[in-house]
Amino acid sequence: MLVGMTEPRPRSVTSKALAVLGTFDAAHSRRTLSEIAAATGLPLSTTHRLIAELVAWQGLTRGADGRYEIGRRIWVLGSLSAVSRELRAVALPFMQDLSATTGENVHIAVLDGDHALYIDRISGRRAVPVVSKPGARLPLHATGVGKVLLAYGADELRDRALQRLPRLTPLTVVDPKRLTRQLDEIVAHGFATTHEEMTPGSSSLAVPVFDRDDRVAAALGLVTASTRRELARLIPAVRLAGRGISRMLGSTR
Amino acid sequence: MLVGMTEPRPRSVTSKALAVLGTFDAAHSRRTLSEIAAATGLPLSTTHRLIAELVAWQGLTRGADGRYEIGRRIWVLGSLSAVSRELRAVALPFMQDLSATTGENVHIAVLDGDHALYIDRISGRRAVPVVSKPGARLPLHATGVGKVLLAYGADELRDRALQRLPRLTPLTVVDPKRLTRQLDEIVAHGFATTHEEMTPGSSSLAVPVFDRDDRVAAALGLVTASTRRELARLIPAVRLAGRGISRMLGSTR
Repeated sequence: MLVGMTEPRPRSVTSKALAVLGTFDAAHSRRTLSEIAAATGLPLSTTHRLIAELVAWQGLTRGADGRYEIGRRIWVLGSLSAVSRELRAVALPFMQDLSATTGENVHIAVLDGDHALYIDRISGRRAVPVVSKPGARLPLHATGVGKVLLAYGADELRDRALQRLPRLTPLTVVDPKRLTRQLDEIVAHGFATTHEEMTPGSSSLAVPVFDRDDRVAAALGLVTASTRRELARLIPAVRLAGRGISRMLGSTR
Repeated sequence: MLVGMTEPRPRSVTSKALAVLGTFDAAHSRRTLSEIAAATGLPLSTTHRLIAELVAWQGLTRGADGRYEIGRRIWVLGSLSAVSRELRAVALPFMQDLSATTGENVHIAVLDGDHALYIDRISGRRAVPVVSKPGARLPLHATGVGKVLLAYGADELRDRALQRLPRLTPLTVVDPKRLTRQLDEIVAHGFATTHEEMTPGSSSLAVPVFDRDDRVAAALGLVTASTRRELARLIPAVRLAGRGISRMLGSTR
């Protein structure tokens, strides 16, 4: 993703430094000076100076091959964010229990713009390969946690999402009417299921997590191999874990 | 910690913006505008403008009570750092297994200046309360993981650490000669143990984690209630997990 193309060219010095950091994402975790300059649209000399300041501050680190990556200091700062300090810290023990009990991968995600942002994952013993790395953003309409966030989200979010339903596998639900019915059922029943809509061979199950204002703060999901037939049997366990996290967050729902 | 007192007053615009972020730490995860201004030594108006740019970029978030905290965007960036992307991702499954097998709290830490920086923790079912939150920095001389990092660290690090051994509990080892003997034994035997040196009632056990250059990249630790007598019985399991992580990192040691 070229930041210079998707965001206005940075004007202030601060916004330029932040634009340098913003060129890093899951698909670009290690970048050269010239890649960073191209992505920000800033001159090489300016980019070089900003990078030097960020390296001195340990916000960026330079590898032996000359590529830059996000430094430890940013990671430490990130661990202070509410998502890490509150949600993740509260959810992790419940996620461990759910993974240990079911043997499956368990993850938690929050709404981030029009995507599901994955906060953390616990790998189960039966573990199928999953795409939900912490920090990854995945589409709302094709994932269990995404459908939950969409179902309980604002009307405008739902309207926007229904206008653009890219097909990711042959089984992705791309018909707005069918997805609308699914979203209504999710709210009615309190859980979402998907079947190979994001990744062939994987099915998922997800429930909402409520905060102290009884708003949906996150979605808790479990991913299993589609060959495991008894997905429905896992629903009570996932609901129980979701309720446990909600209660710890102060929900009385 | 007042940054204005411990770091030179920021000069460039970039360093000023970074100084604003740098006022946040584990003890100050939510701060007011005036606290941030005082901590950076910057005028209120400058601080206000920098904060506005950071909020617009989602690097800071403003709570309902007017306090600022680290935003989700910094957390997402931090998840791209090597510590999170490589070490944490590789270590977590081994840590889950070790915690599930022993029922104890398991954590992993890296050397960060003269402290142990805790990267992650898995809570065991027998879980004693521990101080090792992700992002927390703890002294090297009083923790199991810290002693491992110190024992395998550079001579200068050891010299510096031995000059300052604050007593944290009645059992903290504050005699440089005694600690030197312990550090030599840790290298000789490949593991460290502590007994109520950081937290009364808690004992710990830690082993080194080696990277592909066979340097110590991290320390893996287990914390248990001091009343659990058989700490020595857990040594093989912790060593096995440490070796597993080392092997996944490319160590041939």
